[in-house]
Amino acid sequence: MKRKNFYSDEEWRKIIEFSEPLQTPFIVINLDRVRNQYKELASYFPAAQIHYPVKANPAPEIIAELHQLGSNFDIASIYEMDKLLSMGVPPEKMLFGNTIKKASDIAYAFKKGLRLFATDCLSDIENIAVHAPGSQVYIRILVQGGETADWPINRKFGCHPMSSITLLEKSLKRGLIPYGISFHVGSQQRSVWQWNEALISVSQIFSLAREQGIHLEMINMGGGFPANYANKTHSIKVYATEINRYLRENFNDQIPKIILEPGRALVGNAGVLVSEIITISKKSRSDSHRWVYLDTGKFNGLIETMDEGTKYPVVMAEENEKKRVGEVILAGPTCDSVDIMYEKARYKLPLNVCSGQRLYWLSTGAYTSSFAAVEFNGFPPINSYFIGK
Amino acid sequence: MKRKNFYSDEEWRKIIEFSEPLQTPFIVINLDRVRNQYKELASYFPAAQIHYPVKANPAPEIIAELHQLGSNFDIASIYEMDKLLSMGVPPEKMLFGNTIKKASDIAYAFKKGLRLFATDCLSDIENIAVHAPGSQVYIRILVQGGETADWPINRKFGCHPMSSITLLEKSLKRGLIPYGISFHVGSQQRSVWQWNEALISVSQIFSLAREQGIHLEMINMGGGFPANYANKTHSIKVYATEINRYLRENFNDQIPKIILEPGRALVGNAGVLVSEIITISKKSRSDSHRWVYLDTGKFNGLIETMDEGTKYPVVMAEENEKKRVGEVILAGPTCDSVDIMYEKARYKLPLNVCSGQRLYWLSTGAYTSSFAAVEFNGFPPINSYFIGK
Repeated sequence: MKRKNFYSDEEWRKIIEFSEPLQTPFIVINLDRVRNQYKELASYFPAAQIHYPVKANPAPEIIAELHQLGSNFDIASIYEMDKLLSMGVPPEKMLFGNTIKKASDIAYAFKKGLRLFATDCLSDIENIAVHAPGSQVYIRILVQGGETADWPINRKFGCHPMSSITLLEKSLKRGLIPYGISFHVGSQQRSVWQWNEALISVSQIFSLAREQGIHLEMINMGGGFPANYANKTHSIKVYATEINRYLRENFNDQIPKIILEPGRALVGNAGVLVSEIITISKKSRSDSHRWVYLDTGKFNGLIETMDEGTKYPVVMAEENEKKRVGEVILAGPTCDSVDIMYEKARYKLPLNVCSGQRLYWLSTGAYTSSFAAVEFNGFPPINSYFIGK
Repeated sequence: MKRKNFYSDEEWRKIIEFSEPLQTPFIVINLDRVRNQYKELASYFPAAQIHYPVKANPAPEIIAELHQLGSNFDIASIYEMDKLLSMGVPPEKMLFGNTIKKASDIAYAFKKGLRLFATDCLSDIENIAVHAPGSQVYIRILVQGGETADWPINRKFGCHPMSSITLLEKSLKRGLIPYGISFHVGSQQRSVWQWNEALISVSQIFSLAREQGIHLEMINMGGGFPANYANKTHSIKVYATEINRYLRENFNDQIPKIILEPGRALVGNAGVLVSEIITISKKSRSDSHRWVYLDTGKFNGLIETMDEGTKYPVVMAEENEKKRVGEVILAGPTCDSVDIMYEKARYKLPLNVCSGQRLYWLSTGAYTSSFAAVEFNGFPPINSYFIGK
């Protein structure tokens, strides 16, 4: 993995200078990158509404930046809603994107002014009808995509596409406004055509609903746009071009309102997690690889290395291509054996790397800090610092 | 799973009464159970020193209870040490059980009075020699056991048994006191004979070390004693009887000092995690199973359901064996698809179970609350309450 593929010399120098005096582990978020990513994505989908999923990184600095840019928000809980409200984000800019919500939380969100809810089952619709009367709802459907996504999301949420008609009818009958359909092709989805498969399904639902007198207006295409991890992906531009073409092909000149929920794509590339090597060892003289133990791990920012799902680029402060490298296993500092980030993937580090040196985990702006354990093994959750502007 | 196999009617009534007015999710820890488990284990190993691994559950209430009973402690970080010191536990009662530690943390622990360190590699020994001169060290070795443990711990920690001699010699040469050998057969180890395999290896190391003029005095047998989960295990008594026999067979009348580090066995059975059903749904009409979504999940107490490793008994407040039951998938409340606790295991719940009802997760006293994410999806970490005495 080459740092130069992810950071220019100048930007990298800034990261290093900023982080040098700070005690590891921590994450540096470059707000310039967040802003640029937002603007880029918005330019490719000029008619779409972007709802940033707060769960990707709930740092107030990021929320404030995106709010200023005009972003909308996707909340997963009333706690996230409270945070946004306290920062001055009006409830009309939010949607409740979690299909799993307590009746009391629906009531709370409604009382605070939220009027747009995701749903995927009869009991949730009943709760919304009772506790958020007259609200808009959209039905989340199950789509394919798990095989080609790094972090598949295609089992837990959503109903079978054909069940969505029943749910739309039920919504209407219970006084709600059946507003649209949502899907999620899976996080860090590598195959752009998965969006087309999903859109074909959605356009069928739009037709079937119309036959029942229900005029849907919106498609929430969720997230799935990639961040730059170790495995190469297409640029956001390529994704956008293709997806816009799928929309035209499936809906001709009647393209519905589009909602996007990019988390990883907006903040993933903006983060660098800085860790220190605690110890390097071999388990026996004849081991072909070294164990490299760091001061952060799966329970302190790197949970998405679970099953080695997300492969972050890991680099050192300075690159020297002439240095001989060897395979390493990267592991965290806790007394838990599952706290190993990469064992099968066999990352490579210079043979003369030693304790006290720093490793930089790129593209760690999303789904890292807020996942950290409160105090597992006594270690405090990882800090974040913000640069840019 | 029958609640009666884990709780008497009387004790269960107390749990229900205590928890009823509290808002879910939370964990109730019965300190009476912690005390009884400690006393039982101590009675089976009267000559052993018990070092409670703080990481299993770092609640001050549990630490205070065990301290009062005379327990020693195993710390994984200086943060855990600080917590113990602030509660009046003297440093002589602690060992630094984590083989992965920064040089600065070794220096800190030494300055605060800690003198017993686990280690498994040359660079760590060098750090201990420099920053904790003259301290006692014990070498952690790799042993088998992963195949028969629910939560295997046999790759990340420890060196090959034959490398331990080199490490003992190095320790001696650098002015440290080579004190003993440690191993861990894996957490929730179901095969008692794995301790014998490990002890055979340890006794060989003791002999080889003696030939080099190093007289080892101690075996740290780690943890591995089980808590009561869904799959049946032997009683602690059976484990103790067998392990004591292995010790006699391998060491005759020269049994070394024994250190035990029971975490799960001391506090696991003491906890009940109380959760509420948010929603129940089927993904399509023809689904043979229901999805049951709870207000707690993998990121808020139930991390050990990762890969469905730990199978907690899950029961309802009242049992009624006449009720018809059906298969369910149990999932948590976050917008993350990996937040599914049991999908393959197919737990069963009554067919008439509905949202708002509570599910009780038994044996959740260990490796639950401190693992919880700081604010993933905005949800706050899970609370604990303490009863007993």
